[in-house]
Amino acid sequence: MRAIWLENKILSVRQNVAEPVLKPDEALIRLNIAGICSTDLEMVKGYYPFTGILGHEFVGEVIQSPGRIDLIGKRVVGEITIYCGECASCLAGRTAHCENRQTLGLIGKDGVFADYLSLPLRNLHMVPDALPDEAAVFTELVAAALEIQQEIEIHPEDRVVVVGAGRLGLLIAQCLNLTGCDLSVVVRRPEPTKLLKNWGIKAITADALKPGKADVVVEVSGSAQGFALSRSLVRPRGTLVLKSTFAGEMALNMSSIVVDEIRVIGSRCGPFAPALRLLEKGLIDVSPLISGIYPLSEGLKAFEKAAQPGVLKILMTR
Amino acid sequence: MRAIWLENKILSVRQNVAEPVLKPDEALIRLNIAGICSTDLEMVKGYYPFTGILGHEFVGEVIQSPGRIDLIGKRVVGEITIYCGECASCLAGRTAHCENRQTLGLIGKDGVFADYLSLPLRNLHMVPDALPDEAAVFTELVAAALEIQQEIEIHPEDRVVVVGAGRLGLLIAQCLNLTGCDLSVVVRRPEPTKLLKNWGIKAITADALKPGKADVVVEVSGSAQGFALSRSLVRPRGTLVLKSTFAGEMALNMSSIVVDEIRVIGSRCGPFAPALRLLEKGLIDVSPLISGIYPLSEGLKAFEKAAQPGVLKILMTR
Repeated sequence: MRAIWLENKILSVRQNVAEPVLKPDEALIRLNIAGICSTDLEMVKGYYPFTGILGHEFVGEVIQSPGRIDLIGKRVVGEITIYCGECASCLAGRTAHCENRQTLGLIGKDGVFADYLSLPLRNLHMVPDALPDEAAVFTELVAAALEIQQEIEIHPEDRVVVVGAGRLGLLIAQCLNLTGCDLSVVVRRPEPTKLLKNWGIKAITADALKPGKADVVVEVSGSAQGFALSRSLVRPRGTLVLKSTFAGEMALNMSSIVVDEIRVIGSRCGPFAPALRLLEKGLIDVSPLISGIYPLSEGLKAFEKAAQPGVLKILMTR
Repeated sequence: MRAIWLENKILSVRQNVAEPVLKPDEALIRLNIAGICSTDLEMVKGYYPFTGILGHEFVGEVIQSPGRIDLIGKRVVGEITIYCGECASCLAGRTAHCENRQTLGLIGKDGVFADYLSLPLRNLHMVPDALPDEAAVFTELVAAALEIQQEIEIHPEDRVVVVGAGRLGLLIAQCLNLTGCDLSVVVRRPEPTKLLKNWGIKAITADALKPGKADVVVEVSGSAQGFALSRSLVRPRGTLVLKSTFAGEMALNMSSIVVDEIRVIGSRCGPFAPALRLLEKGLIDVSPLISGIYPLSEGLKAFEKAAQPGVLKILMTR
């Protein structure tokens, strides 16, 4: 089958990659559509050593499913962590932090930029009929956005600032906007401003905000400046949510975290079921986030486009 | 009056410092006993620019109190933040984070290493008769320890590790021990081990712990190694509490905080009333923490002693 292969930081479209061999609890899924994520771009830069098929955002159709033949022909999305179910983390309900985990297209498991992929049945979620592929493919990203509200309470009176208006930032902003909170998004480029305005969300520049006034700040810029800005905006006893994964260390003034009694929360993958609910209800608007759709065979071009500044979501169809 | 004066990182015992001039809402307090805190030692190193009388841990007797004459002759301890009561932080109930605050012996307000000090009436707490000065002087430090439980929940089943067994670490350990949690304290020196054993608390060395297993880790070592160890011990979705204030920046791998969804909590001053309750009930054992008592006139000697490795609390009497 065809697949987009990463090896030694070099990406290539391969024509004769072996199809996945199913484990007893797995389904074979034919790709409909996949999305390129910032983490995929970081992986090409060497964020994490990985050799194999990249990609973890997908919608596909179940082709084989020995354990659940009723699933055959169904459209599905899938959670990206393959967990053991037996370690201390799994038994404590933290399957996303399984001590023996593999992660789709990231750690020890081939990903979705291919004609076919495999995933355990328990990772799959059926896509509602009314939800088109081009919207359902955002499920993983909307789930990651919702993880913030899974981890901390957002109160309707909270002053919340999102720093970063890229792919994930714009979805986080839409999810937070549904809480009724006093929301602002810090933008560096003109393009997201119009989108945010359409959604009724304040788009502001960094200098428009006073330091130490926000109850919650979500850092999703992935840059050192964005991180410093985010820290400065949090009020004493406020919350700084970190959503960016990137290589390297960040300098942090620990004393200021102690003196201001700041809460810093790391946030990663989130719950699929509520993400699908919000998408199905039309409460999250994903269509303006699509910057281009490429066939899988033009995967390298798709990656080039996705890495350009200001480009939002790039999708690939089979 | 006599006072221990800090100016340009130089500490001196002065003989003719002016007595405090009372504001209408303040009391004049004659010092009984005072404690030297790690922050005092950091102040001498230049942690924060300050010129004036150092010190913030005290027990004293109210001498003048125009607004509350019933307080005259009473023994008191006092909260160290002088707040305005009118800013956004105060109105939100976060008086310790008052935007216009002064802090006793630290920011804009002369401290307690002197014959007399002044504090607003609303900062004062009466010391129960049964509680001797040498125990009551630990109120501020026990309150700082209790701030952890004011900020986060400690469950009886939690595995909790305290990294650092100095003055504050040993009090934090005692407070946490009362929750019934599975508590370990990482020690680097032999002295605290015996104390901890007497209290029924596990004392261990850093290499005895597996990484990623603790639900809650309290970093109170104030060192870069202690910080790195603390981070490594926290389980995914666990909590890292920062209790040390020190100058300078710390390198932190933000990606690991995101991937493991760690919660980092800064923690500073805490509630006096429960600290006094625990001390009065004898549930916190402070007498073995006293490494020496000096007269105020020998303040420089007291500071020298307090800075020595392995020394716990140094007190000064008037």
